[in-house]
Amino acid sequence: MSKELNPLSRLVERIPHDPMLDFLDKVGPVENLIDLGFGDPDFAVGQTTKEAFKQSIDADHSHYADGQGILPLRQAACHFYNDKYACGIQGPDDILVTVGAAESINLALMAIVNPRDGVMIVEPEYSQYSNSVLLAGGQKVPVDTATSDFKLTPELIQRTYDQAAAQGIKVIAIIVNYPNNPTGSSYNLDELTALANTFEKLNLWVLSDEIYAEQTFKGSHHSLYAIIPERTILITGLSKSHSMTGYRLGFVIAHGAVMTAMRKIQDTLVTCVATPIQEAAASALTLDPDAGIKTRSRYLMRVSKVAHALTDLGFHADIPTGAFYVWAKIPDKFGDDAFPFCVELAQKAGVQIFPGSIFSDTAKAYVRISCAGADKDLDTAINRLSAYLKKPA
Amino acid sequence: MSKELNPLSRLVERIPHDPMLDFLDKVGPVENLIDLGFGDPDFAVGQTTKEAFKQSIDADHSHYADGQGILPLRQAACHFYNDKYACGIQGPDDILVTVGAAESINLALMAIVNPRDGVMIVEPEYSQYSNSVLLAGGQKVPVDTATSDFKLTPELIQRTYDQAAAQGIKVIAIIVNYPNNPTGSSYNLDELTALANTFEKLNLWVLSDEIYAEQTFKGSHHSLYAIIPERTILITGLSKSHSMTGYRLGFVIAHGAVMTAMRKIQDTLVTCVATPIQEAAASALTLDPDAGIKTRSRYLMRVSKVAHALTDLGFHADIPTGAFYVWAKIPDKFGDDAFPFCVELAQKAGVQIFPGSIFSDTAKAYVRISCAGADKDLDTAINRLSAYLKKPA
Repeated sequence: MSKELNPLSRLVERIPHDPMLDFLDKVGPVENLIDLGFGDPDFAVGQTTKEAFKQSIDADHSHYADGQGILPLRQAACHFYNDKYACGIQGPDDILVTVGAAESINLALMAIVNPRDGVMIVEPEYSQYSNSVLLAGGQKVPVDTATSDFKLTPELIQRTYDQAAAQGIKVIAIIVNYPNNPTGSSYNLDELTALANTFEKLNLWVLSDEIYAEQTFKGSHHSLYAIIPERTILITGLSKSHSMTGYRLGFVIAHGAVMTAMRKIQDTLVTCVATPIQEAAASALTLDPDAGIKTRSRYLMRVSKVAHALTDLGFHADIPTGAFYVWAKIPDKFGDDAFPFCVELAQKAGVQIFPGSIFSDTAKAYVRISCAGADKDLDTAINRLSAYLKKPA
Repeated sequence: MSKELNPLSRLVERIPHDPMLDFLDKVGPVENLIDLGFGDPDFAVGQTTKEAFKQSIDADHSHYADGQGILPLRQAACHFYNDKYACGIQGPDDILVTVGAAESINLALMAIVNPRDGVMIVEPEYSQYSNSVLLAGGQKVPVDTATSDFKLTPELIQRTYDQAAAQGIKVIAIIVNYPNNPTGSSYNLDELTALANTFEKLNLWVLSDEIYAEQTFKGSHHSLYAIIPERTILITGLSKSHSMTGYRLGFVIAHGAVMTAMRKIQDTLVTCVATPIQEAAASALTLDPDAGIKTRSRYLMRVSKVAHALTDLGFHADIPTGAFYVWAKIPDKFGDDAFPFCVELAQKAGVQIFPGSIFSDTAKAYVRISCAGADKDLDTAINRLSAYLKKPA
């Protein structure tokens, strides 16, 4: 008989069970469920992009690509982000093509984190960040925005930094995400400049996840990379702008030694991103650069409709500044934990939305409604929700 | 002015510069160079696979896939590896779809390595393994096969284990790769069983990289997963069997808690593999399962031709047991380091092959000739090599 096997990685064991799975388990199977939980755009990839993808396959471009990414794609990305957001990217050498923004976040953290370094994570958060910090050997330092209207402020950052320092944790980086998933918060140029000054003062690396930049509904999106390029690692990609979640095409953008380090990790981690996908992406950025603008107006209609319907039903809900989620507080009569409300809503009304507890312990009274799905599903879901809430208890 | 940035990861800084790049730098640009260095198959992906890939794109399968991999692909892989090598994989839950075998190796190491754990790496080696061990926070423990005909033996493993222990290093795992890149070595069932007994006795995790299984020229390929499934993490994929290097489609196969751990890492690291590529791969395994057998005979012709030609020219070269490289000792008159020989050969004869020093410090007199490229290039390269060697000095 086999001996007892050697123990597994303690680091990986510390990655917590995904609270979203707990919720899905609790809901169980529901017939005809409308899912407004996940954030996967229902829009199709543009026709020119699909043609380029298929041409690459027909042309037998089935060989290894440059680990950093094919040059035409990096050139196209450089032009795209400089043109749209005045990022000031110096050239294609500062762009690395990744397996979606998820890999970008890991490359960045693996490049900068030493054991037990603190990394600030803005809560409520999408759990990817915490898990990636753990995997890189760092410590999560939560920055709770529940009492600041779900936005970062210089004071909040300074206070969190000081508290961590008092506990002996050296914070070396912060992960920011705007427009934000799940809250929809974003920042104007004055706010961003104030935040950038604080990041500079505290000498932080800044992982700026701007994957929802094209889904900015109020004002313009400004990139932290344009303000503090030397310490910003820009995380982005085509999942949201070009509705390409399942193609897994991201970028990590940075200058200098941190890019060299990420390049080494990329070679070791995945060798390169699939060649035909890179050629499809180069076409998407070149021939279909405004795909995100076309879907933005559709998303805005959706989030507006949902926010208004929820307000009419007694929720506290605003139209988000960006992204494609409505972040809403449940009516007071349902108490301060939306988890049982969401379970019941799924089981009894056939509408799945995510409880705030998935994203933060201090935002349990909130729910996230994804408006990425089809319009008709959204309409049916609103009708179901309305009928459910108006039903006598 | 900006402060000095926080230091980068010390772990990543320990990943050495790639010796292959040093070699390529030294060679510099050469016109009409025939590259027998890299191992990228020249064969096209099968037509049915390309059609399935394009159908997936046309059908707008551009959404997130299950992080473990789409079920039809895992079912197809389960059947394929059980059918070909009697692996005894219990079901699709024991298979995880990855971004090429490279990601598989990292998932496996991240799942089992704790800081400073020793991982045995068979030398000569493809540097991916060493770098992945470093990235996972482990220590490389080299097992030098140069004095045992480039094959592992129980005695060699035991001796290396004991030497590491004497230095205070606890070896918890070994990475084996057969058919081997670069040496072409493989093992018959008796040899493998003896190795498996040793791995069991020393209580090692076994990462068995069998990506070249379909390119076995002598006898049959036997999988360690069939012998010691509870401690074997099988690394494989379609890069070599289906000439799909640039599609980045790998598998990691394991049972029990280590699979659960790898699944968590996969979710954090890349979310999932691109959906259309998974659908293409499912088609490849189902409709074109013998792609590897078709190319095997072509590879065997190539390696035989090269081995014979080199022998005629004074090299020590055997036909490899598997994979698609010829591993040969340079003629004695060129000394015991093939590096300058390879540089000159590239620059003066226009033929690029890799010096053994890229793969091991103790196999410097060897060269690796990749037979993955087109037949006509191979013929031209042999002619050039022959003319170069026969030229009076």
